[in-house]
Formats: sequence, structure tokens, C-alpha cells
Amino acid sequence: MNSYIYELEMQVRDYECDIQGIVNNANYLHYLEHTRHTFLTANNLSFAQLHSRGIDAVVSRVEIQYKNSLRPDDVFISKLNVVRQGAKYVFNQVICKKNDNTLCISAKIDIVALVNGKLSKGIAEFDSLTEVTGV
Amino acid sequence: MNSYIYELEMQVRDYECDIQGIVNNANYLHYLEHTRHTFLTANNLSFAQLHSRGIDAVVSRVEIQYKNSLRPDDVFISKLNVVRQGAKYVFNQVICKKNDNTLCISAKIDIVALVNGKLSKGIAEFDSLTEVTGV
Amino acid sequence: MNSYIYELEMQVRDYECDIQGIVNNANYLHYLEHTRHTFLTANNLSFAQLHSRGIDAVVSRVEIQYKNSLRPDDVFISKLNVVRQGAKYVFNQVICKKNDNTLCISAKIDIVALVNGKLSKGIAEFDSLTEVTGV
Amino acid sequence: MNSYIYELEMQVRDYECDIQGIVNNANYLHYLEHTRHTFLTANNLSFAQLHSRGIDAVVSRVEIQYKNSLRPDDVFISKLNVVRQGAKYVFNQVICKKNDNTLCISAKIDIVALVNGKLSKGIAEFDSLTEVTGV
Repeated sequence: MNSYIYELEMQVRDYECDIQGIVNNANYLHYLEHTRHTFLTANNLSFAQLHSRGIDAVVSRVEIQYKNSLRPDDVFISKLNVVRQGAKYVFNQVICKKNDNTLCISAKIDIVALVNGKLSKGIAEFDSLTEVTGV
Repeated sequence: MNSYIYELEMQVRDYECDIQGIVNNANYLHYLEHTRHTFLTANNLSFAQLHSRGIDAVVSRVEIQYKNSLRPDDVFISKLNVVRQGAKYVFNQVICKKNDNTLCISAKIDIVALVNGKLSKGIAEFDSLTEVTGV
Repeated sequence: MNSYIYELEMQVRDYECDIQGIVNNANYLHYLEHTRHTFLTANNLSFAQLHSRGIDAVVSRVEIQYKNSLRPDDVFISKLNVVRQGAKYVFNQVICKKNDNTLCISAKIDIVALVNGKLSKGIAEFDSLTEVTGV
Repeated sequence: MNSYIYELEMQVRDYECDIQGIVNNANYLHYLEHTRHTFLTANNLSFAQLHSRGIDAVVSRVEIQYKNSLRPDDVFISKLNVVRQGAKYVFNQVICKKNDNTLCISAKIDIVALVNGKLSKGIAEFDSLTEVTGV
């Protein structure tokens, strides 16, 4: 059930680290979002183009376990899968260090689709992403 | 049980908003962190000074419900309380719009204290913060 | 000639500091932008509302001298004035520590106005800001 | 004189764009810094390791011409060279779109080296970088 359908390799940028010398907790949400958006692109969807068509993917809930901190120069793999639950698209995401596969964070991100500013019951574009998983 | 012991007024900065015209989901973690850190300062503690003494407050878990989006020019109140649960300090935090008290997010942020890089069972400095609540 | 017509008090947020323990160089551009935008607001203009009317204030050139670093907990005053030079609005901006008036940065930021995506020769809304200075 | 000695390919992340739908002006400084730091890494130096040895590379002056905005999904090439001028290391940097080589920004970034918090006259580690250029 934790088989991931998309992976993105990234590297820590020094400005993402704070005075503790570790990636600041908020920046993981940036990593997770960027992974979801390149996943969209890999499936011929674009966050910006969806927005221009009146469709906004909006985060409705976030749950993150921080296990091991990323540090300067670390290269990591960000992985995801996605399932639909009612009107929500639930992304299961993890970030692991590339060199030794250490789990850094695991996350569950709920996304809802707004159409012209109104909450939708789900949209065909995102349903097509979940079909990839065979769910 | 949701009586808050500290409040900070802030205003959305335009650069915190993304192409959807709303505050990006990651920036709420910045708001929440800044609120915790000014709460420390108000109690004569400093995140940076603690770090220089080998004490690091580190986020171990985050749970956020996004209810209503903040937008450019919005002024908001960020509130918190904190309780100790074992080795963790659990911050209950909400952000509400100032003008009409709309709830924007509610969050539960678990913090652990590392002392010289090792997980502590809790530290006196943070215990003193929870005493404020009478817990 | 360096008389400033607008001031904003701000405080360093810990997440704006990097592993060197000082505010990261990019974040000063955020401070400068936020100062310009609250200056707009103080003059009954809004960056976001201008955008929705097809008017975009865009940075065309930046020149910053970094003199003294801001650090965690520092409170600072961000000041500006603005003059028109041809199609450009030139903002002279400085940031000084509040407690001892130490100059942290001085900056010259050129702004141009795009109207419906096209470079304008200047717009009445911004001209009214420069009149404040008596230029 | 504008022959560049290092190139890094990057892609715009959606969260780096603001409500105007373009990369926010401050984020270019992040791109430029990350390019300098991976250039260090490519030359067996590390910003974080230098810091832990008491050596801090600090930005002392920035001059950026913004020519064409980067937008969501854009892939770009960030290029640099570096020369020493007295105690300063001057990085000439440009960012161009990958697909059509459009110039997005050109920048001149002055870096000084602090050793144990004091301004140095230059350090061997950085001089070795300029030798790459034959200067």
C-alpha cells in the first residue's frame, strides 16, 4: 500500500537551512508541493494552467512526521502516491536521503479542487492521476 | 481547553502569496514558528540563544487543518497554548483573521528538545512555558 | 536628498536567517518589497488590487549595499523615498537597526509599471506617490 | 570577458512565483546563491563546511538587471564567472531560459570572506576559484 508511483530527485539548497544548520520545517512543504506539481507535469497537467482555467488545487490538511533532518548538500528522493477519498485527493509522500535511503519525513497531504472558487466533488483531471495507481 | 496564552498580530506580505492569490501553504508554518519564537522571547527565552547553548527546539510532527485562505493585505491573529506530553511539547495553534475572527488554520505542532544533538526527555526552560497554562 | 517619506518597523524572523546566523541576503529584498507595498497601502493603493486591474509594478533593477547583518531578534526600521526618472520609479531604501540606528543595507530599486503586460511610460497612480516628496 | 566557467540547470518551482504569475524578484537571489554554492561544491568546497571552519562568504553588494521574467514550468540555465578585485570576489552571473536562450537577469554579486567574523583580504580557497578563469 506504500508503493509510490512518482519520484523526484532534489538537493538541499543552503538558503533552505536555518541557524540550526538543518532544513527549516516549512521548506519540506515546498519540497512536497514541488513534487506534486512535477508529478502533474509528468501527467500533462500544469498547476499554473489549471489555475488559468479556474481550477485550483488547494491544500486542506497536512500531517507530517519529521524523522531525520536534511542538511546542506544532502541529495534526496521525494516520492508520492495518491488516492481519492470522497472529494479529497490524499497524497502519501515520503522524502528519503539518496545515499543511504534514510527516511527524513513522511507526510499525508489532502488536496481539494476548487472550480471557480467553489469546492468541487472531485475533477476528472485529478481522478486520472489516481487511476495510475490502480485504486 | 482551547484557551490560548499568547497572541501575535501579523499581516500577510504579498510575497507570501502564490499565483492562486492566496498565502502559500508552507508559509503558515513560518507564521506558526514565528509565533512560537516570539512567545519564547516574551518569556525571556531566545531560539538563537538556546541554539548557541546547545539546545535546539525541533519540530517532530505537524498537523494543520486549512480552513480559510489568507489573502494580500489580511491582518491576522496567531494564538497558541502549549502542553507537555512525555518528551514532547505540544503547541496548539490557530490563526484567525483580525477583522471578522474567521478561522484560517488550526494546527498541532509537536516540538522536542535536542541537547547537544541528542533527544532530551524535556528541559526545564520549556517546562516553565507549560506552567504558564496551569497544566 | 535622503529624506525618507515612509517608515516601517519590522522584526527579524528566525526562519529568515541561514546557517551563518544572519538574515539571508535574499530576504532583504522581501523586506524592501513589503515596505514598498505597505507604503502603497498607506497611500490607498494595493499591489494585489492593481494587479487585478491589469497594472503590475515590476522590479527592473536592484542595487544593494550590505553594510551590517541583521540577526535573530533584531528590530529594524525600513525607510524609503521615491522619485520618477523617465518611465522608471526609483525607490531609495535603507534598513537600520532600531536600537542604535546602525545602517544595515542601502538600496536603489527601479520599478516599472506594466499595463496589461506592456511597459508603460508611467502611470498616474505611481506619479501621485512621487508628488508626496515634492519632486 | 563574459565567458562563463560554470553552469547549473534549474527549473522554476511554482511556490517561487507570486500573484503576478512570475518568479518573485527576491527568489533570483536564491537562484544566484545556489549556483555559487554548487560551483563551490564542484570545486570541492562547501559553504557549510567553510562556515564550520570559521570562514563565511558574505554578500557585500548586489546589482541585478531584470530583463525577462521567469514563469511556472520554465527551465533555465544559471551561469557564472568570478574575478578577484582587491578583497572582493566579484561574481558575474546570468540566468537564461533553456529553450530559447532568452536573457532573464544579469547580475554582479560582490562576495567578501569573513574569517572568524573579521573581514579578510581574501582567502586561498576562493583565490583558487578565480584561477580557473585564468585571471
